[in-house]
Amino acid sequence: MSTNLSAKPILGLTMGDPAGIGPEICLRALLEPAVRKQCVPVLFGDVPVVERATKRSFFLNKIKVVSLAEWEKSGMVKQPLMVDCGAMDAKKIHPGKISAACGRAGYVYIECAIQAALAGKIDGVVTAPIHKESLNLSGVTFPGHTEIFTALTKARRSCMMLYSDKLTVSMVTTHIGYHEVPGKLSIERVLNVIELTAQTMRRMLQREPRIGVCGLNPHAGEHGLFGNREEEKIVAPAVKLARKKKLNVTGPLVPDAVFTTGQRGKYDAIVTLYHDQGHIPFKMLAFDTGVNITLGLPIIRTSVDHGTAFDIAWQGHADATSLFSAIKVAAKLARNKIYDLRDTIDARPGGRRVNRKSNIINPK
Amino acid sequence: MSTNLSAKPILGLTMGDPAGIGPEICLRALLEPAVRKQCVPVLFGDVPVVERATKRSFFLNKIKVVSLAEWEKSGMVKQPLMVDCGAMDAKKIHPGKISAACGRAGYVYIECAIQAALAGKIDGVVTAPIHKESLNLSGVTFPGHTEIFTALTKARRSCMMLYSDKLTVSMVTTHIGYHEVPGKLSIERVLNVIELTAQTMRRMLQREPRIGVCGLNPHAGEHGLFGNREEEKIVAPAVKLARKKKLNVTGPLVPDAVFTTGQRGKYDAIVTLYHDQGHIPFKMLAFDTGVNITLGLPIIRTSVDHGTAFDIAWQGHADATSLFSAIKVAAKLARNKIYDLRDTIDARPGGRRVNRKSNIINPK
Repeated sequence: MSTNLSAKPILGLTMGDPAGIGPEICLRALLEPAVRKQCVPVLFGDVPVVERATKRSFFLNKIKVVSLAEWEKSGMVKQPLMVDCGAMDAKKIHPGKISAACGRAGYVYIECAIQAALAGKIDGVVTAPIHKESLNLSGVTFPGHTEIFTALTKARRSCMMLYSDKLTVSMVTTHIGYHEVPGKLSIERVLNVIELTAQTMRRMLQREPRIGVCGLNPHAGEHGLFGNREEEKIVAPAVKLARKKKLNVTGPLVPDAVFTTGQRGKYDAIVTLYHDQGHIPFKMLAFDTGVNITLGLPIIRTSVDHGTAFDIAWQGHADATSLFSAIKVAAKLARNKIYDLRDTIDARPGGRRVNRKSNIINPK
Repeated sequence: MSTNLSAKPILGLTMGDPAGIGPEICLRALLEPAVRKQCVPVLFGDVPVVERATKRSFFLNKIKVVSLAEWEKSGMVKQPLMVDCGAMDAKKIHPGKISAACGRAGYVYIECAIQAALAGKIDGVVTAPIHKESLNLSGVTFPGHTEIFTALTKARRSCMMLYSDKLTVSMVTTHIGYHEVPGKLSIERVLNVIELTAQTMRRMLQREPRIGVCGLNPHAGEHGLFGNREEEKIVAPAVKLARKKKLNVTGPLVPDAVFTTGQRGKYDAIVTLYHDQGHIPFKMLAFDTGVNITLGLPIIRTSVDHGTAFDIAWQGHADATSLFSAIKVAAKLARNKIYDLRDTIDARPGGRRVNRKSNIINPK
């Protein structure tokens, strides 16, 4: 193993729902030279499932496989690896179908990866899609990845960010009904999302980021003409507090103006107040290349920006672009995290980073 | 006057707030060859205001001016014209400032144009921007153009559409607070907007348009997972009723998917449920070229897609592109309305259209 290789971040990939496109795109990622150039990938999944889903048993010759028990006893990762979690019987899977067993297996892979990240054995986790209904059927009560990561890492605060080269948005609320949004907004919650956004963008850009914050109502309320003055009561005070903390923040901004070509370049990231306020403009600009990042966790977590695609699962033509993008962003965050000892998030258990830092040539 | 000229629609322009950029952009439109090629423009405003705002008294030599009294007695419009409404004293205007007198004058121009359209003397109205605060100061209680047009034309139902070559959206609700939206949605209201959208797009395209209707909640509610099932209770039944009326309508659609490059081309227009659901994607794609159309009126009305721009008023460098676009769309709607006797809206007083129809060479 070269000195150079040891400088690469080690990234855990979770295989996602076995009945979806996760197994095939994860195998592609493990074998992809561009991925191996950026990181040392470790796939948490079930080997027989990947073999059945991809009809490629020969891949075992190329990729080292360890059992979960071996993984737990092993030392530092030195090469691409698959951790065989033994979470389910591959023969029982019906591709593209909802099932409790698949929901449970998808959860096990995530749990294993989170434990490895918390233990400092991997530098971040990239997740393939799980299916919410299968997860629910299996008795897991978390609605999705974000909630699982927040709970298992005991994060005090977290939020979703959608990152791309063209636009980056983070969200104060996400998967709740339209009508519930105003009740979920508070100065503290908006301030949290501003801070988490600034923290991650600072790491991505290696400079102080420019953050914009949207208003809630048409024209950002037009000085109280529309709405319940959420802009004056919640957004403006949160922006003021963030500025006191020396963050470069502007808002409340007019939602239908800030995403236009002329305006959005003024900000490195835009804090939005509800799911579609951020998702509509983001998906218009970065449909295939977007990466979902969970902010506020003690570990790095990125995700594909699509679902299990049950309709094309196990057919061999699923697009792995979004997974490759998610790996690229996680690798960049991990490299900059290793490099950037200034950030308080670096108070993670495990001293490996400091040793590896000296190997990093170009952290950007 | 040639036979060909008589085939052009006659369009009323309202000068907008005298202290804004309306006077200068309207004069540009009156003089613009591209505008005169598409229609015979009739500007409702105050001649001394245009002269002071543009420092161009000589324009009177080029454009015929009539007083309001002369206008009311006059017959068919044969050439570009300015109707001098005598609504205010030009010397009292402070450019870029809110004032009751300017608010009142802006309202008078609109009133004159609407009367002319209802009388069949002009084929449509294109409005320059008014200032909501000036209007309000003057004692006019309507919040804006749409409400004035709806009331003065006694329209039973109306809605806003934003039209461009790239994307067209209409809105079930517009200038109300975020929290008020769910309470304003009903099957009837959504159905109305679908029907009005189909009617206008049918006229624009001269074929049955394909209409998409958005859901309200993230992922259109994901079968009741988010929200109060507004998709199942309101949107789906409205779409069903519209289909029974033989309209080509699809919905409820996932809001963050329908505006992506791959999806939006499937529809000629998309019905959105609230201001920013339509305005955010529209302004991203058609910031400078968008045209605001009020649907459901017995007369044609289009508008610029910007405000009074008080900060640059009377300085001679306001951009008239949006006004030219609004004129172009109004002219197209008027030509197709004249041509298209199938449409029920054609039951407007005045028999001039039938006579003029024979002159139209290319109605598209």
